[in-house]
Amino acid sequence: MANIKKTTHVIESKDVYTILEKEGADNFMDELIDRLTQALHSYNADQTVIPKRSGFHYTFPFTGLVEWMPLHARGEEITVKMVGYHPGNPEMFDVPTILSSVYRFDTKTGHLKAVMDGVLSTALRTGAISAVATKMMAHPSSETLGMIGCGAQAITQIHAISRVIKIKKVLFFDTDADAQNSLVSRLAPLGLDAEFLPKSLKEIVAESDIICTATSIDIGQGPLWKDLPYRPYVHINAVGSDFPGKVEVPLSLLRQSVVIPDFREQAVIEGECQQLTAAEIGPELSAISRQKDQFDFIQNATSVFDSTGWALEDHIVMDLILNKAEKYDLGSQLEVEYFPTDNKNPYEFLMNNDINKSKPNLKKVI
Amino acid sequence: MANIKKTTHVIESKDVYTILEKEGADNFMDELIDRLTQALHSYNADQTVIPKRSGFHYTFPFTGLVEWMPLHARGEEITVKMVGYHPGNPEMFDVPTILSSVYRFDTKTGHLKAVMDGVLSTALRTGAISAVATKMMAHPSSETLGMIGCGAQAITQIHAISRVIKIKKVLFFDTDADAQNSLVSRLAPLGLDAEFLPKSLKEIVAESDIICTATSIDIGQGPLWKDLPYRPYVHINAVGSDFPGKVEVPLSLLRQSVVIPDFREQAVIEGECQQLTAAEIGPELSAISRQKDQFDFIQNATSVFDSTGWALEDHIVMDLILNKAEKYDLGSQLEVEYFPTDNKNPYEFLMNNDINKSKPNLKKVI
Repeated sequence: MANIKKTTHVIESKDVYTILEKEGADNFMDELIDRLTQALHSYNADQTVIPKRSGFHYTFPFTGLVEWMPLHARGEEITVKMVGYHPGNPEMFDVPTILSSVYRFDTKTGHLKAVMDGVLSTALRTGAISAVATKMMAHPSSETLGMIGCGAQAITQIHAISRVIKIKKVLFFDTDADAQNSLVSRLAPLGLDAEFLPKSLKEIVAESDIICTATSIDIGQGPLWKDLPYRPYVHINAVGSDFPGKVEVPLSLLRQSVVIPDFREQAVIEGECQQLTAAEIGPELSAISRQKDQFDFIQNATSVFDSTGWALEDHIVMDLILNKAEKYDLGSQLEVEYFPTDNKNPYEFLMNNDINKSKPNLKKVI
Repeated sequence: MANIKKTTHVIESKDVYTILEKEGADNFMDELIDRLTQALHSYNADQTVIPKRSGFHYTFPFTGLVEWMPLHARGEEITVKMVGYHPGNPEMFDVPTILSSVYRFDTKTGHLKAVMDGVLSTALRTGAISAVATKMMAHPSSETLGMIGCGAQAITQIHAISRVIKIKKVLFFDTDADAQNSLVSRLAPLGLDAEFLPKSLKEIVAESDIICTATSIDIGQGPLWKDLPYRPYVHINAVGSDFPGKVEVPLSLLRQSVVIPDFREQAVIEGECQQLTAAEIGPELSAISRQKDQFDFIQNATSVFDSTGWALEDHIVMDLILNKAEKYDLGSQLEVEYFPTDNKNPYEFLMNNDINKSKPNLKKVI
């Protein structure tokens, strides 16, 4: 009989950042970008089944959601990310807006193979997928990156994009002055060789070759701007839209752009694609990655990557983190699920105990 | 600013069985039955939102499923059980058919508060809910319990029902002789004061006041019997149906019975209710629990509790286990999710490191 591992590899947040420390943040990000590029290129919806995420959305006790993002790599494994989005978190509890954890199941037995932090991995993969999209869609001469929203996601957006494009200037804006003022110091350890310039939103839209929007703008309050001039080849990574009614990019700009969603079915519900008719939405990022020649023209057009967050990204970043955890022997093996020696006996642990403070009554047993 | 706990309480399987050892299996089961009875009685679908479970069903590499069973107690918490059902597990890997883990999230912040084993808790709550249904629906004079299927679930079915009904005889059958032969020894530690008699399926159907079906009969191969005589007031807990196409109880018997599902929407997809028209299905167990007087007649009728597994049961058993884990200081507090001191800085851990083997380049920073 085949032996299977019965423990769950629990990778705490400290294990994830130890991996980044040991690998080097740049090396880790480069490998993640490479793996995501490969995964998009070889993606086959028959082989990797990704239902759209669902979950609970609520306004009490605070506005927020908890959702599950499942993926089934047929014949192999299942990855499920659980993700909470609570825009009041920083102000009310001094904790990140996005809290998350990721789970890996074996499809041979249903066993929970691994649990890991999803907070850092979400920031990493959201940066990395923007880098992949930017590399495919931005004009090759791009050198000015505009960052609208200077929160947690801004850090990995700037990091990842700087790994695939030679960024000379980073223009940045946040309605929260603290966030804007602290951005540069938060990026300092990366040693990015670029000029950092705080700017108004209008200046960023006008002067950037690449724009990332990663804001917590309220539902119904978007877009972030209207009718501002922008560069004709601008590429926008619209990262912040992840909630029905929440949008960042003006409809007029979307209509003049090639709009590429990560996951169309989801983008029409909670991404920038909410604003568009079906005919106005371009193919998914994985499709343009598979037919690169056909879509090279996007680099010479105004383009928007509608990044709502896709389970494939979480699956790939989990693969990478699991590989590295093994390499560095990080995390702990816990016996989360109960595997009695006799699988027909959930009370096996009682066998050697006199648990009910009375002798086992076997006298009437035949 | 409000302080929130940032760790995840991880309750391993050994912690769950330590709780049962310390409390006594009977005491634990009694408390679980009480809490489930209360929860059913006070259940309000507007306050406790329970979507039907969904997940991945597959036949490769083996027949199985991994599903998520979510519950939202509005304003409070979210419980999600992840459950795998792989009928080949015992034979192929010597592990339980059902593997499972349960997760608890805070709706204030989305924080993962707790993770626990779901294997033992599923067996416990599946037993307990049958006890609740049996207490409500079986004839008060019942004293013979028939167990069809002698696997893991049989243990907690017999245990739980014996806590609410004075069982004098347990008749038991399994197509797997090993399972049938070992049942009594697996139950021994409970010290049940009843006579145990191996019987044929036909004898069990004919002689039992209460029948539990908890088999792994294949999809499309049910029901377990056809046209056998049975007692007029027999009550059946149909526990094994949890997969589209899988049924245990004959249609003729269902049509002559009051059929009470745990969760109608789910039972019509994967329970005995698959076999019935809408008009043939009775109210849910929580409804008859709230209007007890109106449904007392069921005790004098042939009745079937169609137990497909309901997230409310998992929520309640998790509550109980969390309470007891706290009482006995069991489990570990792990930092699964990443909470940087500066919630806008996912790379905070790099701040004191020279991670990319180059000095932070701040010379161009303004």
